[in-house]
Amino acid sequence: MSASKPRIGFIGLGIMGRPIALNLIKAGYALAVYARRSQAAQPLADAGAKVCASPAQLAEQSNIVFTMVSDTPDVEAVVLGEHGITFGAKRGDVVVDMSTISPEATRRMAAGLEARGIDMLDAPVSGGEQGAIDGVLSIMVGGKAEVFARVRPLFECMGKNIVHVGDHGAGQVAKACNQILVAQTMAAAAEALLLAQAAGADPIRVREALLGGFAYSRILEVHGQRMLDNNYEPGFKSKLHLKDVRIALETAIVAGVELPGAVRVAACLDELVARGDGELDSAAIARTIWGRASLD
Amino acid sequence: MSASKPRIGFIGLGIMGRPIALNLIKAGYALAVYARRSQAAQPLADAGAKVCASPAQLAEQSNIVFTMVSDTPDVEAVVLGEHGITFGAKRGDVVVDMSTISPEATRRMAAGLEARGIDMLDAPVSGGEQGAIDGVLSIMVGGKAEVFARVRPLFECMGKNIVHVGDHGAGQVAKACNQILVAQTMAAAAEALLLAQAAGADPIRVREALLGGFAYSRILEVHGQRMLDNNYEPGFKSKLHLKDVRIALETAIVAGVELPGAVRVAACLDELVARGDGELDSAAIARTIWGRASLD
Repeated sequence: MSASKPRIGFIGLGIMGRPIALNLIKAGYALAVYARRSQAAQPLADAGAKVCASPAQLAEQSNIVFTMVSDTPDVEAVVLGEHGITFGAKRGDVVVDMSTISPEATRRMAAGLEARGIDMLDAPVSGGEQGAIDGVLSIMVGGKAEVFARVRPLFECMGKNIVHVGDHGAGQVAKACNQILVAQTMAAAAEALLLAQAAGADPIRVREALLGGFAYSRILEVHGQRMLDNNYEPGFKSKLHLKDVRIALETAIVAGVELPGAVRVAACLDELVARGDGELDSAAIARTIWGRASLD
Repeated sequence: MSASKPRIGFIGLGIMGRPIALNLIKAGYALAVYARRSQAAQPLADAGAKVCASPAQLAEQSNIVFTMVSDTPDVEAVVLGEHGITFGAKRGDVVVDMSTISPEATRRMAAGLEARGIDMLDAPVSGGEQGAIDGVLSIMVGGKAEVFARVRPLFECMGKNIVHVGDHGAGQVAKACNQILVAQTMAAAAEALLLAQAAGADPIRVREALLGGFAYSRILEVHGQRMLDNNYEPGFKSKLHLKDVRIALETAIVAGVELPGAVRVAACLDELVARGDGELDSAAIARTIWGRASLD
């Protein structure tokens, strides 16, 4: 990387993208931004970012373009679609996709970009909106080591635990692993609290006791408390968690392995979304496990 | 409690009981001990404990009697059986059962002891052999608050997170919750590592990445590493974890709630024990999930 700072583009300014982009501005980078909903770009414009009319226009004036959108088709549209990044990017540019999407689709896009001399990293995150605001996200990166090294100073403005997991798609695989582990831990925490309540122990004190031993998890600490409080303000919406677990299950099928625990929690999330609770935090999976039982 | 230190008895000097009893001696308490296998008492005798010929004889000379044995029938035998604690205990004595057993059986025993003027606490632990040695166990206590207060200084020689969870049996309920949460988190961690490996990411780096985010758990940290190292030296034996999960499932049936996730991991542990791996650490549940897939 040259001594001068790279010009950065950022596409996708939602719950996660906005605070990440703001942290780049705070770190002193000049930012070009694009959002499908133009009002989403306003807070960034207020902070000094240049708002672009399309991903292509943004890519023309950037060396490194970040994308943080919802799902595989959104990334494909932003990268490959009409007025997409590929129509503005130059040889040697880097596309860094921080969305959570299919590892297979990531590999296809990386190959397509590479044919045009454009590098790609997949860099999905864990840590939620608060982690994005505080700049303490966990970032799971797939792609070439030298490209990772080049982008690393930017990741360090956003996160704390930044791990290069492997080649293209490996970041997405890590995120898929993260999401099936998180969903299953939530479901298991919900079962534990249900058993506590039903068998005559105080679930509040049981959680407290369990946090001190081998049962400790961030999920029991944060989402266990949400369950006890019946507080399912997102946070991370259950419909997005369902999307992520489905990506993991598709990845498992391609890889030829069975994940019966993940299949089971996918069914719980599916039930939750089907009954209209897709906008709730995914800790609301407890509702599908508690059934008619109530914890108060 | 009088100003003089209570006289303590300790029954069951296995992997967990021995280091706990030794910590009481280190804290300056005079200890009477009993073990079915007399050679198990030797390290305690060497440390100055008085070895008794039966639980009854031990109870005669103690005010507070701890039990740390394997299963419900073992506790019942030691408390109620021939030469059992009840044949030596006096009014005002306390029996503190640290074993992991049925909450229902605990409530029955507590009622039987109470009829003779003897108090009982159930106080199962989490934290494993190392936690017992280091005196940092998590202790989940059920029983009367005033009895808990009386025994608390002794618990503080053994553990760090000491929680009075509720009335008789509530400590065992908390432990049951702990064990189904731990088993499910282990199974979920094994699925995550399997997916990582199968889908072309490095499971070592995936675990590292996941530890920095919401997927963090003590299980992923400690037992995830065991899985990667294929190191299933106990630790906590899978046959005992199966016993504990079965207690939880029986407790759930009595309480009228369904725990499908716990049922699923019980089947995994059952398969593990059935194929002769019951002596392995319960993290070996990964072997039932990985099937023919190998992580090296």
